[in-house]
Parts: sequence; structure tokens; C-alpha cells
Amino acid sequence: MKKIVPPIISDIINTISTFPGYGEKASRRLTLNLLKMPKGEAIDFIKKLADMIDKIHPCAECGLYTEKELCDICTDAERNREIICVVEESFDGFIIEQTGKFNGLYHVLGGRLSPLEGITPKDLNIDSLIKRIDKLKAKEVLIATNPTVEGEATANYIYTLLKNRDITVTRLAYGLPFGAILENADEFTLSRALEFKFKI
Amino acid sequence: MKKIVPPIISDIINTISTFPGYGEKASRRLTLNLLKMPKGEAIDFIKKLADMIDKIHPCAECGLYTEKELCDICTDAERNREIICVVEESFDGFIIEQTGKFNGLYHVLGGRLSPLEGITPKDLNIDSLIKRIDKLKAKEVLIATNPTVEGEATANYIYTLLKNRDITVTRLAYGLPFGAILENADEFTLSRALEFKFKI
Repeated sequence: MKKIVPPIISDIINTISTFPGYGEKASRRLTLNLLKMPKGEAIDFIKKLADMIDKIHPCAECGLYTEKELCDICTDAERNREIICVVEESFDGFIIEQTGKFNGLYHVLGGRLSPLEGITPKDLNIDSLIKRIDKLKAKEVLIATNPTVEGEATANYIYTLLKNRDITVTRLAYGLPFGAILENADEFTLSRALEFKFKI
Repeated sequence: MKKIVPPIISDIINTISTFPGYGEKASRRLTLNLLKMPKGEAIDFIKKLADMIDKIHPCAECGLYTEKELCDICTDAERNREIICVVEESFDGFIIEQTGKFNGLYHVLGGRLSPLEGITPKDLNIDSLIKRIDKLKAKEVLIATNPTVEGEATANYIYTLLKNRDITVTRLAYGLPFGAILENADEFTLSRALEFKFKI
């Protein structure tokens, strides 16, 4: 924007614009939201952000965000340590955890393979995954990357590393999302839903 | 989310969720972006946010965000002080300024009338607009609220306050946006484009 915008503001808009998925409009909207907050609340919020950046880090074992050295899942004696669910990001693990249907451990890759963005296997926590599989003598690896082209490529890459080991490699099921309207489902989803049809 | 999410993180996600236009997913994505920034950069960014909240405030005259007591437009002797462009937010003024086609002063309402959100005339900088019109002996008020239902209602409200004064009240033109495809234009936009057709 023209020089009429105070540089402090345009500097922040420019930084937010570098976040994936943030264009100039979204960055402006976010900056405006902060500027419109009552000053006391804005200061509190910024303190909380600083606190988060200071205290939160990936779990030394699995990579889930935690305040501690090891996260609550890695230190929970009741979890099944023979099954590891591989996710792209920490929040994917948190979302799976919300279902209450998984009782194993997690492993956060920290992203997905993306030749376009220059993200190669060495940029992801793949070496540490192999080491953990060995250490835990894991029996199953559930690859829960996103059902996107990049997530699929990442899953396939991990599968090729594991296929000659005595370990079960699984993926999350494909199918219609709950509440979906058939007419709106894309061809790929519908094909998979037919392929994986189940007997009631 | 379940208690597995560190409270520092969920607290921040909850705060971001209160921003207009931010659901839980967008708030999670923004929080993840911050957590994934290199620590030094994240600390720098947060310092800049604190700096912005500390130093930026609305111009005492027109309401545009500025670091000074009065903004660069209000103190610019070359601006035409007889025409006031009324905008919902400071950034709307900055965007109009980018065109280089307006040489008057601005007036930031700080929002739009919205019965649903409980925003009434007294929540907007309307009294100060009337006072400025008198003080500046303005000849024209260009109402540049958004072409939305709420923006229109706000424009109409301001018009009713001004219609008995000896002052020209104008609005930004309606019509097809540049680069639009006729087939995709909504009926309302097309009707207005016909109504405001111009001779070439």
C-alpha cells in the first residue's frame, strides 16, 4: 500500500502475508482485528502469544506440541505403544485424539512432501519415525496424512520405507464424509466409497 | 478440543475464534503458523505486534490509523478540506488513497450499522462527522461504505442526517467490476450497471 499506511502496520501485514494461505486481504483483516481490540485485551493477547512461543515446543519423542519435555500421551502408561499414528502436523494428532478411538502413540512429520515448496524427506521427521518404530518394536504404523496429492505422496514414501519390515502399515479409510450429499461427492471419493463398501 | 491440547494453545485459539470471520479451523491454522515460525522470527513478530498496539491509534481528527496525533492526510495543506470521504474502516481509506483519485479528507466510522450485532449509530463516529462537516464547512460528503446491506443502511442513515443541509452527498458508483464477466454478474450489479450506463 501507499506510504499513507503507517510502516508499523504495513510491516505486520507483510509478515502475515508470508503465512501459508494468507493473502494481502486476509492479512489486512487480521491486522484490523488486532487494532480494533480494546487495548488491554490486545496487550493480554500478545502476552499470551509470547508465552506460547516461549513455552510450547514439540514433544521430544513424538513431536506433538506440549509444555513439557514429553507430552501427556508419550508418558501415559495406558497407551498402546505398539501402534504409531503418523500425522503431518500436531493439530492433526489433537483432532484424531478428540475421536477417542485411537489409543496408540503419535508421530508428527512436521509437514508433507512437496516438491513445489522444496520439502523433501530430510525436511520431515522420518528418520526419527524409523528409529521409534525400532525402539518401540511397533507392530502397526497407521499413516494418517491428509488425503491430498501431497499427503498421498508422503504416505507412499513412508510405505516404501516400511514394506520390507515385519510391520502392518495402515491408512485412514476413504469414503463419504458423514452428512455428505451423494450428488456433491467428487468422483474420486465416490469411487473409493464403492471400492470400500461394507456389509451391514 | 480435548485436554491433550496444551491450555496455552487452546486459550489462544479461543481468542482468535472471537475475531470476526475466524472459525475454529482458521484460528488453528493461524496458531500453527505462529508455532511453526523459527523462534527468533516469532519473537520479533510478537514484538512488532506489541509495538503496533502501543503506537498506532486513530487520528484525532479523521480516525485513520496513524502513529501521530493527526494523520498525514489531515495535516497535508494540499488536500481539499471541503470534501469528506466517509469510510467504514481505516483500511478502506488506505485503499481509496491507493487509487490517487481522491484529494479530500477522510472520516472513519469505525464500523457499520448492524442491528444483528447490536451496532447502533451511537457506536459509530457519526456525531464527530457532523461536527467536522460544520467545522470544515464541507461542501461534499462522499459516502464510501461497502455496497452491502449493512453498508447501504449506514449510508442511508447518514444521508437522512445530511439531506436538509446545504451540502452535496455522493456515493461511490455501482457497476460491473473491472475484468468482470457479464455472465457471472449478479442481477443487482447488472441492474445498477444498466441504470448508470454512460455515454462513450
